[in-house]
Amino acid sequence: WHARRRFPWKLLLQIVKVIVITAQLCLFAQQRYNHVNYLWDTKISFSHLFIKGWDTSREIQVYPPADGPLAVYKRSDFFEYLDYSISTYARIREEAIGSYLYDYDKNGSVIPPVLCISQYASGHAFIQNNSYILNDNITKTCVDIPPSIANGSDWSVKKFLETKNITFDFDLLLNTDFTFELRTIKLRVNLPFDTPECYHLTGRVIFDNHEHDGQILVELDVAARVLECDGSIHLASESSSLKVWRTIMNILSIIVCVVSLIMCVRALYRGYLIMQSTVEFFRRYVGKPLTVDERMEFVNMWYILICINDILIIIGSFLKIGLESKSYEGFLDTWNVCSLFLGVGNMLVWFGLLRYLGFFKTYNVLILTVKKCFPNVLRFSICILMVFAGYSLCGWLVLGPYHLKFRSFSSTMECLYSLINGDDMFATFSSTSGKDPVVWWFSRIYLYSFISLFIYVILSLFIAIIMDAYETIKKYYRRGFPTSDLLI
Amino acid sequence: WHARRRFPWKLLLQIVKVIVITAQLCLFAQQRYNHVNYLWDTKISFSHLFIKGWDTSREIQVYPPADGPLAVYKRSDFFEYLDYSISTYARIREEAIGSYLYDYDKNGSVIPPVLCISQYASGHAFIQNNSYILNDNITKTCVDIPPSIANGSDWSVKKFLETKNITFDFDLLLNTDFTFELRTIKLRVNLPFDTPECYHLTGRVIFDNHEHDGQILVELDVAARVLECDGSIHLASESSSLKVWRTIMNILSIIVCVVSLIMCVRALYRGYLIMQSTVEFFRRYVGKPLTVDERMEFVNMWYILICINDILIIIGSFLKIGLESKSYEGFLDTWNVCSLFLGVGNMLVWFGLLRYLGFFKTYNVLILTVKKCFPNVLRFSICILMVFAGYSLCGWLVLGPYHLKFRSFSSTMECLYSLINGDDMFATFSSTSGKDPVVWWFSRIYLYSFISLFIYVILSLFIAIIMDAYETIKKYYRRGFPTSDLLI
Amino acid sequence: WHARRRFPWKLLLQIVKVIVITAQLCLFAQQRYNHVNYLWDTKISFSHLFIKGWDTSREIQVYPPADGPLAVYKRSDFFEYLDYSISTYARIREEAIGSYLYDYDKNGSVIPPVLCISQYASGHAFIQNNSYILNDNITKTCVDIPPSIANGSDWSVKKFLETKNITFDFDLLLNTDFTFELRTIKLRVNLPFDTPECYHLTGRVIFDNHEHDGQILVELDVAARVLECDGSIHLASESSSLKVWRTIMNILSIIVCVVSLIMCVRALYRGYLIMQSTVEFFRRYVGKPLTVDERMEFVNMWYILICINDILIIIGSFLKIGLESKSYEGFLDTWNVCSLFLGVGNMLVWFGLLRYLGFFKTYNVLILTVKKCFPNVLRFSICILMVFAGYSLCGWLVLGPYHLKFRSFSSTMECLYSLINGDDMFATFSSTSGKDPVVWWFSRIYLYSFISLFIYVILSLFIAIIMDAYETIKKYYRRGFPTSDLLI
Amino acid sequence: WHARRRFPWKLLLQIVKVIVITAQLCLFAQQRYNHVNYLWDTKISFSHLFIKGWDTSREIQVYPPADGPLAVYKRSDFFEYLDYSISTYARIREEAIGSYLYDYDKNGSVIPPVLCISQYASGHAFIQNNSYILNDNITKTCVDIPPSIANGSDWSVKKFLETKNITFDFDLLLNTDFTFELRTIKLRVNLPFDTPECYHLTGRVIFDNHEHDGQILVELDVAARVLECDGSIHLASESSSLKVWRTIMNILSIIVCVVSLIMCVRALYRGYLIMQSTVEFFRRYVGKPLTVDERMEFVNMWYILICINDILIIIGSFLKIGLESKSYEGFLDTWNVCSLFLGVGNMLVWFGLLRYLGFFKTYNVLILTVKKCFPNVLRFSICILMVFAGYSLCGWLVLGPYHLKFRSFSSTMECLYSLINGDDMFATFSSTSGKDPVVWWFSRIYLYSFISLFIYVILSLFIAIIMDAYETIKKYYRRGFPTSDLLI
Repeated sequence: WHARRRFPWKLLLQIVKVIVITAQLCLFAQQRYNHVNYLWDTKISFSHLFIKGWDTSREIQVYPPADGPLAVYKRSDFFEYLDYSISTYARIREEAIGSYLYDYDKNGSVIPPVLCISQYASGHAFIQNNSYILNDNITKTCVDIPPSIANGSDWSVKKFLETKNITFDFDLLLNTDFTFELRTIKLRVNLPFDTPECYHLTGRVIFDNHEHDGQILVELDVAARVLECDGSIHLASESSSLKVWRTIMNILSIIVCVVSLIMCVRALYRGYLIMQSTVEFFRRYVGKPLTVDERMEFVNMWYILICINDILIIIGSFLKIGLESKSYEGFLDTWNVCSLFLGVGNMLVWFGLLRYLGFFKTYNVLILTVKKCFPNVLRFSICILMVFAGYSLCGWLVLGPYHLKFRSFSSTMECLYSLINGDDMFATFSSTSGKDPVVWWFSRIYLYSFISLFIYVILSLFIAIIMDAYETIKKYYRRGFPTSDLLI
Repeated sequence: WHARRRFPWKLLLQIVKVIVITAQLCLFAQQRYNHVNYLWDTKISFSHLFIKGWDTSREIQVYPPADGPLAVYKRSDFFEYLDYSISTYARIREEAIGSYLYDYDKNGSVIPPVLCISQYASGHAFIQNNSYILNDNITKTCVDIPPSIANGSDWSVKKFLETKNITFDFDLLLNTDFTFELRTIKLRVNLPFDTPECYHLTGRVIFDNHEHDGQILVELDVAARVLECDGSIHLASESSSLKVWRTIMNILSIIVCVVSLIMCVRALYRGYLIMQSTVEFFRRYVGKPLTVDERMEFVNMWYILICINDILIIIGSFLKIGLESKSYEGFLDTWNVCSLFLGVGNMLVWFGLLRYLGFFKTYNVLILTVKKCFPNVLRFSICILMVFAGYSLCGWLVLGPYHLKFRSFSSTMECLYSLINGDDMFATFSSTSGKDPVVWWFSRIYLYSFISLFIYVILSLFIAIIMDAYETIKKYYRRGFPTSDLLI
Repeated sequence: WHARRRFPWKLLLQIVKVIVITAQLCLFAQQRYNHVNYLWDTKISFSHLFIKGWDTSREIQVYPPADGPLAVYKRSDFFEYLDYSISTYARIREEAIGSYLYDYDKNGSVIPPVLCISQYASGHAFIQNNSYILNDNITKTCVDIPPSIANGSDWSVKKFLETKNITFDFDLLLNTDFTFELRTIKLRVNLPFDTPECYHLTGRVIFDNHEHDGQILVELDVAARVLECDGSIHLASESSSLKVWRTIMNILSIIVCVVSLIMCVRALYRGYLIMQSTVEFFRRYVGKPLTVDERMEFVNMWYILICINDILIIIGSFLKIGLESKSYEGFLDTWNVCSLFLGVGNMLVWFGLLRYLGFFKTYNVLILTVKKCFPNVLRFSICILMVFAGYSLCGWLVLGPYHLKFRSFSSTMECLYSLINGDDMFATFSSTSGKDPVVWWFSRIYLYSFISLFIYVILSLFIAIIMDAYETIKKYYRRGFPTSDLLI
Repeated sequence: WHARRRFPWKLLLQIVKVIVITAQLCLFAQQRYNHVNYLWDTKISFSHLFIKGWDTSREIQVYPPADGPLAVYKRSDFFEYLDYSISTYARIREEAIGSYLYDYDKNGSVIPPVLCISQYASGHAFIQNNSYILNDNITKTCVDIPPSIANGSDWSVKKFLETKNITFDFDLLLNTDFTFELRTIKLRVNLPFDTPECYHLTGRVIFDNHEHDGQILVELDVAARVLECDGSIHLASESSSLKVWRTIMNILSIIVCVVSLIMCVRALYRGYLIMQSTVEFFRRYVGKPLTVDERMEFVNMWYILICINDILIIIGSFLKIGLESKSYEGFLDTWNVCSLFLGVGNMLVWFGLLRYLGFFKTYNVLILTVKKCFPNVLRFSICILMVFAGYSLCGWLVLGPYHLKFRSFSSTMECLYSLINGDDMFATFSSTSGKDPVVWWFSRIYLYSFISLFIYVILSLFIAIIMDAYETIKKYYRRGFPTSDLLI
């Protein structure tokens, strides 16, 4: 009872939908990439400007990292790093290539950067007789450092703190933050959709001594807020008309999705009506109620899929319109949510196309095979998950301290999952070789048994299950499908 | 009705063709490699000479890159880099190991290097009150820098520009190019085919500030033009006779291909004639017209394959002769096209050999299996492509800003395709872990579901499809092939 | 005869066990990670402080390593490195960020660091006439270096040794150790389970010249001993109540395991009784003794599995209680053993859950398949092991000197095993290309043949064996299982 | 007709052989590793001492390399590098940690190091009018540099060459070699088999300008010759008795192999006799000659395998005895050949064990399957090789200039072969993206089509072929093997 006569309309709608949604996604992706990239580059620039020991090899986020963490290990180094950050800030206008300016408060005076020191309230370690006093309440002392003071060449943080009577005990130190605020206008109009934008940037150079293990980690954090911006601009390109296009795109995609949603809901409702009458019919003439499984056959899962993706895209599009129209704050989070809705929605739209391929017999074989083997694959996966969980927990506990990859539980799972698929195997072997022979032997047995079991036995079982389903379906085609009660 | 009696001649021809074409390809590949390698090495040398912060780790093009982009972040650094490039140029003859000389114009005076500055026409950022003026027309100011001036040790670009009254506003700066021209003669005669060659090299040190995000990217670009060159040379080896050999090779391969082409066209034409008469026969005596499929059986796909490769190689060989005989300009592009023709042609020649293996029964099984499963594999691939497209688009949008691999759409596809085949999995997992928990969870679900679906389900289905075809063919061999109408 | 009526109790117990044990494991893993991480970070800090040429890229343990070994090659460098270590030690209190203090002996005087030099007793190389005298007894000279002496800026080890009349012959030198002792208190209370801890750290800077090949390897070794520690501490969080929780956890897991152990032993014993009476029955009425295989059917392997994991966890938990309660010394080893017991125990608990899934028919198919194909897979594995051993030994011998991966026998095995699974193949190819053409050709043939054989033939055979088992089991389900004598 | 009654003796012999040969191989591998490792470490030490810009990251031979080639790009750098090498040599005794001494000639005077300069005989590049004169005969000028002269701090090569009237034209320069000779005695007796050894080392610092592309590659080459060495040594361990053990090992393995060889030859000869009589029998009574295939059934391939490995090991053992007994020169090559014989021999010994597993029925299934599918796999491989060759040649030509991996033909093959097995895929994709869009598109189509074809189609076909063979063999077991004429 596939509604064969009406299908061209729906198919056409779906194809239009795919095109419209994908076009919109491409536009959005580029737009978003620009924003994120600008922030990332700003962070890199700040790292070069405000962190003394910064190195370009730290700009690439790879596994395994090229270097150990950026940290200071000597007291003198700590003050040097801090001086470097503060003096750069004092001369930011002359030094930096980007055009950064201090932020002013409402009175027109510069908002000075703040140096905050978190320490344990009090305490002392009497190492000689293995005893200590500690009050683990945390006190935070903050001090403003006006850039005009810090500009001189012989200025130093250490002296400055001494004049301010701030004691500084490395044994109790938890955190030192240098927070500064800057404003900038991005005068970039390369791409069609670009207009200059005003940002309020808050930078924090963090010296983290929470671990108290002899190293103070150095980190830079940049937060950006987009400000409303007036500007007279003479543009060679017609960016305004492009803005109109973008709005048309948004509206178009919402309309298409709403239409598609309505049609699917109608179809689902019709299916529900047919089910109702069939149930009635069975109850009266066959005398046997329909099982849940048989009732589910009236609910077309494809329609539900389409409904879901329509809803996702409509929500995503509205979020997108919101992001584009007004000046937003709390930058990255909303963008992430919006892109998640649009992205997943678009993915499901593409999956939905498979339904229309299923109308051709030869394609249908494959879809039916997947459908057929699905429950078995799922059941099998549950069995495997138990084994996998056992291995993961054990590996995490025993190998965790000796290997980067086994540090956290999620990373252990990812590592083992990658090993199953033949990735990074030798590197894992070679770096799990601690000095302790117990661990060494354990890691060998653990890895060899895990990999052999999963690659040779479990992967083969998957193939067996799926081939079995394929052959069953092929037999059905030759000899007819098993009839259910509904098809008498 | 395979023409069994005539086959040895054609087979012999094909074998000769494979040998000749492969030999020619090897010669060409070596010749080409030399040229490209010379240019690459020249670029490396120039990078060392003209870019201040150049590092040998930047010479290796790998994924993931060892360092972040080469860029300057401070105004002082920018001028230092520029001074370094210009002063090296001024002393190139004494400093460089290669023998580079300034280019002279027709009057015999040195062509001076040019420093060009691209800026927005006008504009200013009033950061205090979040407003700006911008005219995004681009003005380009160029100034010659004669090497004789720049030779002094206390010369600096900054002062020079001031004397020339060129204003330099980092806020508006888009691009700074330092373009210089050099000549060189490659006095290398190591390899049999080498003769000294004269090059005109144009170097450009580019300082790119288009992004306006606080970093100016530094890049070097070298373009080479081959000049006609006279020279008296006393060679120990007999390079002239080798030149003759090369020409013989070219002619030989063209002749072989032409002969092969003629024979294939004749065979195709004969097939066409037989088809004509069969159609006539069927129309008259069977009363049933032949379907397109049945007609296609008369067209031997192998002959068409051979025709295509012959044509490709003939075109490639003519291009090659052209490249070798005259002095060429616009170096790399023509070479690329030529190598593409020769390469693809040669690849198809090798594929064509499979046809002759098909004459043996046992080999034929395999070829028939591939032929049999081909339509199913294709159909299945279309289904998969939909799923793949959905995943790619979604991943590109959501993960793009957080991971190098998902930056562009094509690279997202490559990344996902590699993941299917078990490559670089853990590294992808570990570097998609942004700080945002929404993105983190999405990336985990996305990657686990994608990999599991493709590796465990889809790969197994491929195996099922192909095994099915294989068994069908084996049954045919045992019980006879299904007869078509043509074989009564 | 599965004891269907009693099963819910046991299942419930097992589920409770899984939850309790996994929770305990998670707590333990975090606790352990903290300890090991603290030690690792301390080692990094010491490396920065005591080794002159230390570089952050050495902090990442990866394959392949980023740098060659840390070594000195010049005599002057050797003394510079040594001076650096000693002078850092002399100023450790002012320089280091961590709060380290010298260790004092019972008289209250500083325990001075010791410089030990191991040399061959005597010997000389008369290189001119190719002869030598050598007495390979090793003499070890140790000298105390009080930090107060070494504090001056012009102090140097070389002069100091001369004043002490210690001769220093690089030709005979085997080892130079600089051993120092420090105390520290870790004032970290970030995490709920953290309390300040006192450590006694023994650092050793080792200059290793055993190889006598022109390079002296430099290494740092840190050993930690936990000391008993008194301290008055004002904690914001209620760590004491957490301590109680931890103890409850320990006891709970032991109780659960003991109960589970008792139930399993009882069930096994009951099985033994049934077996006894069956044996009796058969002997009397059937007149045929039971074979060992038939007897084994009464022993439920699942129960044995559960017994093993119970025992492992009970031992592990007791070890854990020991580690937590008293002040321990000999830090890492006991922790490793304890985590091994808990980890393996927990893994087996998870595996044990599979048994209860086996009660459902559809799940049972998979478990039966694995059981069915197990002997064949094992037999096949033995065949493969022979081939694998042959390849490993041969590769180790021939390629060992040319490639990092083939250095040791175990690493050769790991390399080959990784290659089978498609890992790191090109890198292996490209780095086994020594200069010697014999080795080059051998390595090519070796690698191509090995990989092709294992990936294409052996992996396929595994799939064949497992599919065969799967189909057999499916047939059994359709047509009934083969009856054994026991089921008349 | 397997000789069941005699088999235990042979099996025992083979097991003894495996143990003896493997033990010997382990000893030999360790011995050899020591030698090669010593040389490698010496090379590293010399690199640090004699090459100015040497960096530890160059000591690791990996793919992809961490840095570009070590080269000089400026004339001043060239002379600095050369000065560094020569001055190090002049002060080698004081500076180096290893104990190196100058080599003396028979008169007792130091053999001075030699600086050789290879240049084109004459030539000049008139870059202004694009013409050149070149005589490509190579003249080599050598000059001795006594270490006593070069010791001063203001000594420089440049001045020295001027005083010697040696002209130095970078345009004509091909090669500059600095060759020096040193002697050393390795006073290492760590391992049981170690005795001090005397080496004559020849170092060459090579400045290679053959490419004439602006960079002079810098390389170091070390050759070692073992000299006869007298020495009085007081050893704590009993190395002499170990020497005896080593000899016993050698003799034992030769004896075992000879016995095994004799037995196999006898068995083969007996097989030949049986064949003869069968042929006679068939000719007389059946009247039908035996085919070659049927005759081959009398030749036991296992015996031939054993014969081959016996011969290989006997040759290898004799080579080993030779290496151990006398003082050898031409160090590495003989060792390589010897290890090749022993390694391959040992590998085949292990393979030979499979034969005895074949006596058990269940194991035999697998061996028979491999035997059965072997011809099909081979035939299929030939088909694939054609396709592979086509792809390799084409990729080499077109992508060669743009990617490290496609530089040489053999490396292209290795790259493609690795890609098939899922290795290094994304890295290959990401680094084949040249600027030229033609090449970009070609590389995408090329890689996607290649990988998809090989992984999805060809790998599946392999599985199909092998499963087919497995099922055939299983059927044989159930229904009996097909009878050949010989088994009437």
